[in-house]
Amino acid sequence: MYIVLMAGGVGSRFWPRSRQLMPKQMLKLLGDQSMLQMTYKRIRPLAEPVNILVITNEELKPGVAQQLPELPLENIIAEPVGRNTAPCIGVAASVIDKRAGKDEVMLTLPADHLITDEVRFREMLLAAAEYTKQESCLVTIGVKPTYPETGYGYIQRDGEIERNAGIPVYKVITFAEKPNLDTAKRFLKSGDFLWNSGMFIWSVNSIQKEFEQHEPDMASGLNRIRDAVDTPHFDEILADVYSKIKSVSIDYAIMEKSDHVCILEAEFEWNDLGSWEAAYNIAEKDKDGNVVQAAAFQGVDARNNFFYSTKKL
Amino acid sequence: MYIVLMAGGVGSRFWPRSRQLMPKQMLKLLGDQSMLQMTYKRIRPLAEPVNILVITNEELKPGVAQQLPELPLENIIAEPVGRNTAPCIGVAASVIDKRAGKDEVMLTLPADHLITDEVRFREMLLAAAEYTKQESCLVTIGVKPTYPETGYGYIQRDGEIERNAGIPVYKVITFAEKPNLDTAKRFLKSGDFLWNSGMFIWSVNSIQKEFEQHEPDMASGLNRIRDAVDTPHFDEILADVYSKIKSVSIDYAIMEKSDHVCILEAEFEWNDLGSWEAAYNIAEKDKDGNVVQAAAFQGVDARNNFFYSTKKL
Repeated sequence: MYIVLMAGGVGSRFWPRSRQLMPKQMLKLLGDQSMLQMTYKRIRPLAEPVNILVITNEELKPGVAQQLPELPLENIIAEPVGRNTAPCIGVAASVIDKRAGKDEVMLTLPADHLITDEVRFREMLLAAAEYTKQESCLVTIGVKPTYPETGYGYIQRDGEIERNAGIPVYKVITFAEKPNLDTAKRFLKSGDFLWNSGMFIWSVNSIQKEFEQHEPDMASGLNRIRDAVDTPHFDEILADVYSKIKSVSIDYAIMEKSDHVCILEAEFEWNDLGSWEAAYNIAEKDKDGNVVQAAAFQGVDARNNFFYSTKKL
Repeated sequence: MYIVLMAGGVGSRFWPRSRQLMPKQMLKLLGDQSMLQMTYKRIRPLAEPVNILVITNEELKPGVAQQLPELPLENIIAEPVGRNTAPCIGVAASVIDKRAGKDEVMLTLPADHLITDEVRFREMLLAAAEYTKQESCLVTIGVKPTYPETGYGYIQRDGEIERNAGIPVYKVITFAEKPNLDTAKRFLKSGDFLWNSGMFIWSVNSIQKEFEQHEPDMASGLNRIRDAVDTPHFDEILADVYSKIKSVSIDYAIMEKSDHVCILEAEFEWNDLGSWEAAYNIAEKDKDGNVVQAAAFQGVDARNNFFYSTKKL
């Protein structure tokens, strides 16, 4: 089993701390570990470092290597340009195909989410991985909405197909883009819409078949990349394929079109930590309500602030 | 005071273990630390991480970051192409000039040498740094030859100028390229030739003046680089200057031409670990004379070998 962490994003919502060289996944927003490090630690009990891939970009690769000292360098894949999640996930599948074969199950996860109930999280991923072996489907994980958020995509689920290790698996009716507030309220009320968490579990073979069916041009580029993995031509072929590849999300390219998608409902707390406000709400505060992530701090009549300063007072 | 580690080399003498992505300085030849990590640890008592620069290349940068987790990423400078030591040292001077000014002393060291008497090594570097402040000269460190090595450059020293913290400082008569065996024997016998260790101590101001005098084109390129340091244009300007810069060693470009060079004689054991044989001689051996740097090892009638295998039995 392989685990793929998507860590290529260039954050803008944590401006000015998140910049090209320091997007959200690299920031130490909560305590002394970055979101990437927290994510890595969370999934580490599921796989050895040799079976963990991080997909990022050229600029971030040194920082990823520095934050994850035990990860083999050849497992940090740098996209030459960002092309949204479909090419990113396709490249990961190509690397795993070449190194371990098409039967391998891959768990693809964003590197910048907060999940506190780690044990339950891992149990669900394992249950999902087991399920994909039986049913060769594309499994996604949805989160039960607690308020009408307009910043997330939603997934409408159908009735329960079966229970796997006590976890219900549902057929997917539809993927919905970020809704307006009225629609989000309707989704929340209906009870069968879940937040799209961007976590995916499937076999290399299953996702490659879907690329071939729905994105044949992309699939042939990804095959070229697969053949070049671990050869001296990898960077060159990757750059060439990426210069022509479509920029599209995996949701739009594959998930919305596939007949083989099912969904598990997350039984763990999930937070995409999408803003300073979200980070503030989660973080530990001092007696004045300040979150202090700083080299040194001296507060003067300062209340309810988020201080982030890695080097200066 | 800044310390500059030159870690851009692409090793060939440790073939097949040293390759483009894993030259000698990155290899764990002796124990569980690479030569770069050992070098860093050796100089760390002299400077805080913010005042340590590593000059390397794009390919090695992620590995350097991974091996030196406490080093700020902006202190790992990646040359776009290798152009020998003069441009490498010039870029380091440009970075220090921009960040801390021309009065700063910089100690420039190769990242792949073995020095066992670390305390005496640091004392000598500090004495050299003190001396450059008084005399604004270029200090190099020579090693007393113990046999007629033909693989090193030599430096002929003149009489003692003065003692600094008990360490004699000599004027330099000449730099000599790698000699043939007869010449090496003559050098050894004469007593006033020292091995050129490639360690240099000077102020930013002193080396910049020498560049201006002896390599004016290079100096103007280096000035452009200095102005771009810590701006978004740095990579672009660096690539542009490097596309035109001369490939030349600091010895040839500056040291052999300058009137301000002096030399300290190393009072510590020094080994450039230039071959498997040199590493074998230094390394700890098992009862069969085998050096074993391996993930796992099972010897069958194996004697006097150097085993290097980071991942496999």
